[in-house]
Amino acid sequence: MKKICILIFLIVSSSFGQTDDEKQLRDIYDAALTKGKAYDWLNHLSNQIGGRLSGSVQAQQAVEYTKTQLESIGLDRVWLQPVMVPKWVRGTPEFAYFESTPGVTTNVPICALGGSVATKVGGLKADLVEVKGIEELEALGREKIEGKIVFYNRPFDQSLISTFEAYSGCVDQRYSGAAEAAKYGAVGVLVRSMSSRLDDLPHTGSMSYGEIAAKERIPAAAISTKGAELLSTTLKLNPNIKFYFKQNCEQLEDVKSYNVIGEMIGSTHPNEIMTVGGHLDSWDLGDGSHDDGAGCVQSMDVLRLLKVTGYKPKRTIRVVLFMNEENGLRGANEYAKIAKDKDEHHVFALESDSGGFTPRGFSFDCSEANFEKVQGWKNLFEPYLIHMFVKGYSGADIGPLKNSDMLLAGLRPDSQRYFDHHHAANDTFEHVNKRELELGAATMASLVYLVDKYGVADAKKIKG
Amino acid sequence: MKKICILIFLIVSSSFGQTDDEKQLRDIYDAALTKGKAYDWLNHLSNQIGGRLSGSVQAQQAVEYTKTQLESIGLDRVWLQPVMVPKWVRGTPEFAYFESTPGVTTNVPICALGGSVATKVGGLKADLVEVKGIEELEALGREKIEGKIVFYNRPFDQSLISTFEAYSGCVDQRYSGAAEAAKYGAVGVLVRSMSSRLDDLPHTGSMSYGEIAAKERIPAAAISTKGAELLSTTLKLNPNIKFYFKQNCEQLEDVKSYNVIGEMIGSTHPNEIMTVGGHLDSWDLGDGSHDDGAGCVQSMDVLRLLKVTGYKPKRTIRVVLFMNEENGLRGANEYAKIAKDKDEHHVFALESDSGGFTPRGFSFDCSEANFEKVQGWKNLFEPYLIHMFVKGYSGADIGPLKNSDMLLAGLRPDSQRYFDHHHAANDTFEHVNKRELELGAATMASLVYLVDKYGVADAKKIKG
Repeated sequence: MKKICILIFLIVSSSFGQTDDEKQLRDIYDAALTKGKAYDWLNHLSNQIGGRLSGSVQAQQAVEYTKTQLESIGLDRVWLQPVMVPKWVRGTPEFAYFESTPGVTTNVPICALGGSVATKVGGLKADLVEVKGIEELEALGREKIEGKIVFYNRPFDQSLISTFEAYSGCVDQRYSGAAEAAKYGAVGVLVRSMSSRLDDLPHTGSMSYGEIAAKERIPAAAISTKGAELLSTTLKLNPNIKFYFKQNCEQLEDVKSYNVIGEMIGSTHPNEIMTVGGHLDSWDLGDGSHDDGAGCVQSMDVLRLLKVTGYKPKRTIRVVLFMNEENGLRGANEYAKIAKDKDEHHVFALESDSGGFTPRGFSFDCSEANFEKVQGWKNLFEPYLIHMFVKGYSGADIGPLKNSDMLLAGLRPDSQRYFDHHHAANDTFEHVNKRELELGAATMASLVYLVDKYGVADAKKIKG
Repeated sequence: MKKICILIFLIVSSSFGQTDDEKQLRDIYDAALTKGKAYDWLNHLSNQIGGRLSGSVQAQQAVEYTKTQLESIGLDRVWLQPVMVPKWVRGTPEFAYFESTPGVTTNVPICALGGSVATKVGGLKADLVEVKGIEELEALGREKIEGKIVFYNRPFDQSLISTFEAYSGCVDQRYSGAAEAAKYGAVGVLVRSMSSRLDDLPHTGSMSYGEIAAKERIPAAAISTKGAELLSTTLKLNPNIKFYFKQNCEQLEDVKSYNVIGEMIGSTHPNEIMTVGGHLDSWDLGDGSHDDGAGCVQSMDVLRLLKVTGYKPKRTIRVVLFMNEENGLRGANEYAKIAKDKDEHHVFALESDSGGFTPRGFSFDCSEANFEKVQGWKNLFEPYLIHMFVKGYSGADIGPLKNSDMLLAGLRPDSQRYFDHHHAANDTFEHVNKRELELGAATMASLVYLVDKYGVADAKKIKG
């Protein structure tokens, strides 16, 4: 009889527990979908402020705006964390054409890659050599590259289901293409835009000169995918065409900027910190709505959703809007450094930096024990059509916090449209769907709630 | 020893089978994503032909175009199945305003509902009575309704995750609102557009007068969601405003049209028919890209994908582009009638009519035995991020084929954006993402392949 009573008690309490969780998730999703703030915040960030390149006036406006908004939702504490960031400026619009025969030119859309040097004032004109990747440079050798512009033209592998995998398979051309080509005497590089589709928009993004000395650095630009196709076809017909481009971008002195931070202090484990965030800076061509305005406003709304649903966290939940993810990661590194200096105990971090599209799930960077634990919550997400709980990469900004006990997670939205917009002039507000954005915020808030309530599996000193 | 041998044989053959299936699905997705035809076909249907309302010139052009395209992919047989369809025409653009005080008017965007009668030539001006649904009419009674325009203004329930559920919860206002209001002496109805978002686009759609005699029918129009909000707010301030609208739509005589059909004849069970389709007609305000150009071109590509991957079907696989789903379902009923008259043995039918968005899975209308069978294939779809295998509604066009042995299925794409575009002027090609459309075609082709290979569970005379 006693056993039966215990059994009944266990069943009842577990079903009560389940019901509480189900109710809390339902409350979170209801609040996000019927009185969410993320979309209004994004509207302001995108349409009133715009692209927020590190060191720009807009980045500073975004710092001030988001701080004010976080203050308005009644957190326990909101502050700015200073950090020095690089300031790269694009200058006047870039210009490019190819010349089939002297005087016969065809314009193509390009943009400077972030961090590139300028061409000389009058622009750069040279022969082209097309390659499908860095690995072809060695075989070509200095004699076929010296004095030329290297044209990297390996497209996305469209057969991959995740567009992030396709991006990963190409982005070395953008990031390291100039540094590698410079070693063979190239005078410039042109990189096919990192995009899933054929269109006329060049996509910028970060690049590095690695160990190349300042005076040996060569200008690097992205060309739209349709421009790349046109150029490649033309080159097959006439390998002697000349390519001209002009850009006057410049790396200035570092300037002071900020991570924007707000927190709700935990009731029973205030020293255990859970961080949720995105990056406040963006590239300059669009307004940075998907990358990563979406992740910022979702992260802000996570704390607000927990508040408006009446949840009192046991642990300290912090929203961090990181500065300078795109071209430096200075904000993320500073946040992790200060956390270490202060001996803060971070148990969990969640990032949204894959666009404001319909959420599909999370990828978790954690121990097997923690992965097993989070998988136990998967059924709670089924009513919201969240099915993907996989192990993998979390996010660039939370990466520096990583330790073996922590649970790191990245929101995984549907990826099909992301690289249509990523780092291009069409990363704009009208391409964000309100409900998709809100579903992401609710999905994040639900995970934060569950981690706060049940703790992580094997972090030291953590109680459920 | 013998038992062990059999066991090994079973394991080996089952793992070989698994590998074959995995390979076939991979081949299908590769072909769809790297050399799919669906997007090009949709481009033509949308941008060269446009909206394809039943009985229109465009509907006829679409019949001819898709027949030609099906002929070009080398099916065993392509034909047109004649069917008489209703012909409703919108006439000149509708016009509406509300009048706060005599002479002070504010225009609002409206469109006639499909099947509505016209207003009288000079338009209709009357008082408004706002309701949240048909069920309020009885309480109001004839005295508060007679001579007025009933304004149905129940919005989508945004807390529902599936926008189709939100639509289902509102669409009675559009479909039956006029018939019900006419019973109380209303002179017209105005219906809040069936849409997930606030914007300026009215959304048309079918409506029925039920048993209401022709001379007692009242004109019915949809108003944009922002128009509805403005009107509702204004009515609260001033219940005496007048509403004016004018439309000269007309129901003409039925005309001859066609279902477009193509088939690959099965090698071993040619008399067992598997039908995959969408509907070729659309509303007239946009170009019908999502509803249901997408479903048509995906269905066409299913057969082409099976051909180009070298698959030889055991059963007869038929693509059917149904005519007149939107305002009559005549094509679907005719197809089912002829199938019955010819004693055709339909074992499976699949419809895509929920937009060309990222596929999430299928909903199956079938026996428990068949549902268990299809769930056994779910793991094959995991690499393609297809997770939803649920029981439920399949599709309007395949519904009339239903019998207890059949497996009916509907493709279930992500639903968040569907009702932003549904039946409105922005259901246009640029809102379809190429990869999302192609993933849908591949997902459909994969299911068709598996059903053909393994058969359905309890259909009579079916072999694996």
